[in-house]
Amino acid sequence: MSQAQLNRRNLAFLIAAAAASPALAASPQHLPSWRDGASRSAITDFVARVTRPGPDFVPADQRIATFDNDGTLWIEQPLYTEAVFLADRVKAMAQANPALRQQQPFKAVLDRDMAQLAKFTEAELMQLMDATHSGMTTEAFAEIARTWIDSARNTRFNRLFRELVYQPQIELLAYLRAHGFTTFIVSGGGVEFMRTFTQSAYGIPPQQVVGSGGKSVFQLQNDVGVIMKQPGVGSVDDKGGKPVNINLHIGRRPILAFGNSDGDLEMLQYTTTGSGPRLGLIVHHDDAVREYAYDRQSHVGQLAKALDEAPRRGWVVVSMKNDWSRIFPFDRA
Amino acid sequence: MSQAQLNRRNLAFLIAAAAASPALAASPQHLPSWRDGASRSAITDFVARVTRPGPDFVPADQRIATFDNDGTLWIEQPLYTEAVFLADRVKAMAQANPALRQQQPFKAVLDRDMAQLAKFTEAELMQLMDATHSGMTTEAFAEIARTWIDSARNTRFNRLFRELVYQPQIELLAYLRAHGFTTFIVSGGGVEFMRTFTQSAYGIPPQQVVGSGGKSVFQLQNDVGVIMKQPGVGSVDDKGGKPVNINLHIGRRPILAFGNSDGDLEMLQYTTTGSGPRLGLIVHHDDAVREYAYDRQSHVGQLAKALDEAPRRGWVVVSMKNDWSRIFPFDRA
Repeated sequence: MSQAQLNRRNLAFLIAAAAASPALAASPQHLPSWRDGASRSAITDFVARVTRPGPDFVPADQRIATFDNDGTLWIEQPLYTEAVFLADRVKAMAQANPALRQQQPFKAVLDRDMAQLAKFTEAELMQLMDATHSGMTTEAFAEIARTWIDSARNTRFNRLFRELVYQPQIELLAYLRAHGFTTFIVSGGGVEFMRTFTQSAYGIPPQQVVGSGGKSVFQLQNDVGVIMKQPGVGSVDDKGGKPVNINLHIGRRPILAFGNSDGDLEMLQYTTTGSGPRLGLIVHHDDAVREYAYDRQSHVGQLAKALDEAPRRGWVVVSMKNDWSRIFPFDRA
Repeated sequence: MSQAQLNRRNLAFLIAAAAASPALAASPQHLPSWRDGASRSAITDFVARVTRPGPDFVPADQRIATFDNDGTLWIEQPLYTEAVFLADRVKAMAQANPALRQQQPFKAVLDRDMAQLAKFTEAELMQLMDATHSGMTTEAFAEIARTWIDSARNTRFNRLFRELVYQPQIELLAYLRAHGFTTFIVSGGGVEFMRTFTQSAYGIPPQQVVGSGGKSVFQLQNDVGVIMKQPGVGSVDDKGGKPVNINLHIGRRPILAFGNSDGDLEMLQYTTTGSGPRLGLIVHHDDAVREYAYDRQSHVGQLAKALDEAPRRGWVVVSMKNDWSRIFPFDRA
């Protein structure tokens, strides 16, 4: 075979390879807010390994990626967004029913009495959840949550909460989907609260959102079937509850999981101890200038155990400060 | 405008319409086992209405279709397939532990003592479920169920249970997906049992299977994360539990639901009382020659309330005998 023939063969091979995985060929453009470095390479190398023919190839239907939400896809400081929602709901309820202003646990929320709030028992917290998240149909709740999410602002950034999503993660979700992954949210947040914004914010449809939930019951109201949200806890989608719910809702062990706190420890363990190629990632909030810096001592999004376990498990600790060139979509590119 | 110009315009319109919905244009070929008639037309008319531009158009992401499994997608007589699985598991357990042969409720199952079985309390049934469906990892259970499903046969047809799926429904699932629907199973069957065959039998992946389930817990075993199946009931995905689980797992009200028994009544009510175009369907088992004939008096798959409510709700009652030219994939076309 002549050199020219060999070159033509190589060229034909390259064209065929490019045609077989066009998205992969274009991949560097897909993560523009990830700086070059070990974190970015860990992601692109992993995706290349599982999508290209070879010993680590994973069929598309098994490319399941699970993401925590609070602190992993959007901001969670100084308070979980859903807790701000809860406080605003208590305010609205007290306007309709002023007697609540003198009753605990509502009074502490209305007075922003942090000392009292810190002393709340689980029963009092549950009372707040029940008062704000039950006693209505799922559709009525979604309408309340959607209205709130379309107007509520974070005070530090003076932005809608739904604008405070992390641009590098939006890019990563799209990049994974372009490579045949199915992307799920598996978060401690209320499942019906999250579903009001996950499609528009992350491109993740309701059936790919797994979260915490209360109890509910089917009823016919005026001959129309509705789901009534009832008092009480149904599922707490945190810590060991995450892999249990992944099994219940998804039915496959993920091959990639991304979290940011000890609430994600068991999801990371479950994901990365399966056989074959696996990738575990942790957002480390170490950027007090552009966002927040917190880990071991934080009451919101505490990260200690998972940080200690990361080296042994090979989990990638992503530095917000060093690995992300841009935090929010409204930041300059 | 001349007649020739008019004809050219009509032709151009027809070509444009065909190009806009190629799958729809080819649709008659997609339901070859459905005989021409009111049931088949109800389906094709509904799909045309929701997929073509017009007042009833439904965006693809909202085209959610939910199907019951036992008696809707595969055979359920004379006994639910999972009950046969349970009995076979008790046999296997008694071989390993002969003392079980003298203990109730196991003895009645092993002796096929129908009089005793009929008297079982819920606690005794639960004891059978716990003994056969818990005390192992989800992966070990799936392996047991998969081995069984690959070899267990129905005695009347002398076929593997997984061959006793309804050919017209396989065609319908594919037809709906070709028109942008996402197809889900919402069944009283055990979710982990069903997931061992739903992908190969129906083209439905694990995350689109909603079912009943026990309790489970995350554990590290030899440093590997596993889900252990525990005794006790988690969710009963039947009657009112179906719409509740549809809300929990899917997060949208379906626009099409297909069932066959009173266990599907609430799912049909929930689906068809939403606003906009909706379609409810019921398989009526009225073919004792090719399959079985049963409804109001049957202990398995009883159909009475939903049959009574069908005319008022506009639900389509599909006659197995008259509407399906072929029942099983192995029947001659």
